[in-house]
Amino acid sequence: MPKLERIEAGHYRIPLPEVLTDSTHGAMTHFELVTCRLRDAEGAEGVGYTYTVGRNGGAAHDILAREIAELAAGHEADAIEALWQHLWWGLHYGGRGGPAVLAQSAIDIALWDLKARRAKLPLWRLLGGYDPRVPCYAGGIDLELDAKALIRQTEGNLARGFRAIKMKVGRPRLSEDVAKLAAMRAHLGEGFPLMVDANMRWTADVAIRAARAFAPHDPTWLEEPVVPEDVAGHARVLREGGVPIATGENLRSLWDFQALIAAGGVSYPEPDVTNCGGVTAFMKIAHLAEAHHLPLTSHGAHDVTVQLLAACPNRFYLEAHGFGLDRYIEQPLLIEAGMAVAPDRPGHGIGFDWAGLEAHRA
Amino acid sequence: MPKLERIEAGHYRIPLPEVLTDSTHGAMTHFELVTCRLRDAEGAEGVGYTYTVGRNGGAAHDILAREIAELAAGHEADAIEALWQHLWWGLHYGGRGGPAVLAQSAIDIALWDLKARRAKLPLWRLLGGYDPRVPCYAGGIDLELDAKALIRQTEGNLARGFRAIKMKVGRPRLSEDVAKLAAMRAHLGEGFPLMVDANMRWTADVAIRAARAFAPHDPTWLEEPVVPEDVAGHARVLREGGVPIATGENLRSLWDFQALIAAGGVSYPEPDVTNCGGVTAFMKIAHLAEAHHLPLTSHGAHDVTVQLLAACPNRFYLEAHGFGLDRYIEQPLLIEAGMAVAPDRPGHGIGFDWAGLEAHRA
Repeated sequence: MPKLERIEAGHYRIPLPEVLTDSTHGAMTHFELVTCRLRDAEGAEGVGYTYTVGRNGGAAHDILAREIAELAAGHEADAIEALWQHLWWGLHYGGRGGPAVLAQSAIDIALWDLKARRAKLPLWRLLGGYDPRVPCYAGGIDLELDAKALIRQTEGNLARGFRAIKMKVGRPRLSEDVAKLAAMRAHLGEGFPLMVDANMRWTADVAIRAARAFAPHDPTWLEEPVVPEDVAGHARVLREGGVPIATGENLRSLWDFQALIAAGGVSYPEPDVTNCGGVTAFMKIAHLAEAHHLPLTSHGAHDVTVQLLAACPNRFYLEAHGFGLDRYIEQPLLIEAGMAVAPDRPGHGIGFDWAGLEAHRA
Repeated sequence: MPKLERIEAGHYRIPLPEVLTDSTHGAMTHFELVTCRLRDAEGAEGVGYTYTVGRNGGAAHDILAREIAELAAGHEADAIEALWQHLWWGLHYGGRGGPAVLAQSAIDIALWDLKARRAKLPLWRLLGGYDPRVPCYAGGIDLELDAKALIRQTEGNLARGFRAIKMKVGRPRLSEDVAKLAAMRAHLGEGFPLMVDANMRWTADVAIRAARAFAPHDPTWLEEPVVPEDVAGHARVLREGGVPIATGENLRSLWDFQALIAAGGVSYPEPDVTNCGGVTAFMKIAHLAEAHHLPLTSHGAHDVTVQLLAACPNRFYLEAHGFGLDRYIEQPLLIEAGMAVAPDRPGHGIGFDWAGLEAHRA
């Protein structure tokens, strides 16, 4: 089988279309994109990426360019599991979490893209094939919006084809969150899928109080009620709060998900393919969730992730993320009547506008 | 109070005095040193560092030079807790583990050094003060040595003043480990403190079998029997194996230690101040251990860590680490009759040989 010949990393700092706010990260003006482009000895190519909310993209790029390029050079492009282990253990002491697993995720996505393109299959078919149409929600980053502005934003999302909406919570007073949620529920009607996201804002006891206040307004889930390290807290919020819990954007490995699932701390595991260890780890997390009778949702990177959820019988909602990377992707995600559609192009099916990105190189 | 004025990072790649081997990292020829030098507006200085076994030092340096220098600039040097939180949350999404917490550890050590030097106190007195004489063991990285070579190495360590020894285990056949341990026990005599370290080599079931085979030879502890992610496995090895467990060099936060301690998975928590979040996190881990009636040992960085264990009533053994950083430190660690002695110089009391290091700049 052909060996990896070129491993190229890029680091871009991209202004957000508008300033975004949530309860933890405050105001965000840029995001960082870190890309990984591969070519094997027969000229087959693959591309992957990771991103940050503004910090440590330089470190992820350094790991790709300095460490991973050296560790992966000359390895068989097709032996992804073997290479994953080689990278994990090669980087282990100063690796695992943080920018190390972001970097490893980027090359892993590129390797799966390359493999699927060589096989002339879209990734969702290569990974098993379930259903290319995946329920999708619009994830707003909108903590600062009042009820009126939030409903205006929601009208725009409905017009774009979405049939499920997520809003931020975690305002200084819980009553503000409840009032906004009640207004959204009244506007959208009974049964409309409506998620709320606290971005780790609370302690477990405060989150339980919030979940109980939200429950009459029937949120589909409460997301990230507490910090990712508080596994026991997640389990308490889920049991005592009475609202299903989604979480995972700040878990950084298969084993983080295993610990949280084993503790009964999550209803909808929510991995991000760009930070959980790539396609290889994402699919294992999907299978772990299936083994535990848990539907799987996702965070970020909807362009790649639609392919992964389209391969999973336990797929729940795909998040359509608000960073606007679509502006630099040749074929942005297609939404039809609330469903995202995995394209039938080989690989993950996305190509970057490299010329457009060049202006934002860090 | 004076504000931080200069934050300077350095990255060095230093050849090891001899090639070292353990069951996980294979042969190691270099280590990486990443330094952080601070100066406040009144000219007070502090220095900290982190290290790796050869990968991701570039990323840790990038985080210090690009992100932390910007996030910390102009902050009060004295408000270490406030700055720790600011950095943790400033780096959070692409941060926490990996090179991010290594970088944060380096600046945190420098901040405590600066604070203690301004106060004209050695760090162990600033942190509370317990006993400057700390029991110390020689940590060999010697999996490849046969019993004869291991005993020869041990004789050298006894001559240098050590009265406790750690050896590596995790050879392909358990019988080889048992034979070497038996030979060491016969040589050193009953009751001599002798630790064994498996460097995450085994699954829990294999580790239980190994612990039971080692038990008749009375090891002080079995270190890192399984991967750090396997919290439940640690608890089983401890309960069923019949040998106390030390672990911590691959835990990367106070919360990693909390989860393992709460699960009953560790007898001797073993944080490394250069990767657990610095002095700030190390002391919290020490206090958490004390609250759970657990003696505290340490990994790596003996030069700084002797100051921390000298402040802890629950201190157990300090590890004297084998990377040979002493060659680039002006006043290497003093060992007297098995005890390391925390120096009474202000700060952590170590100064680097910057001119000597310059030849190894990465």
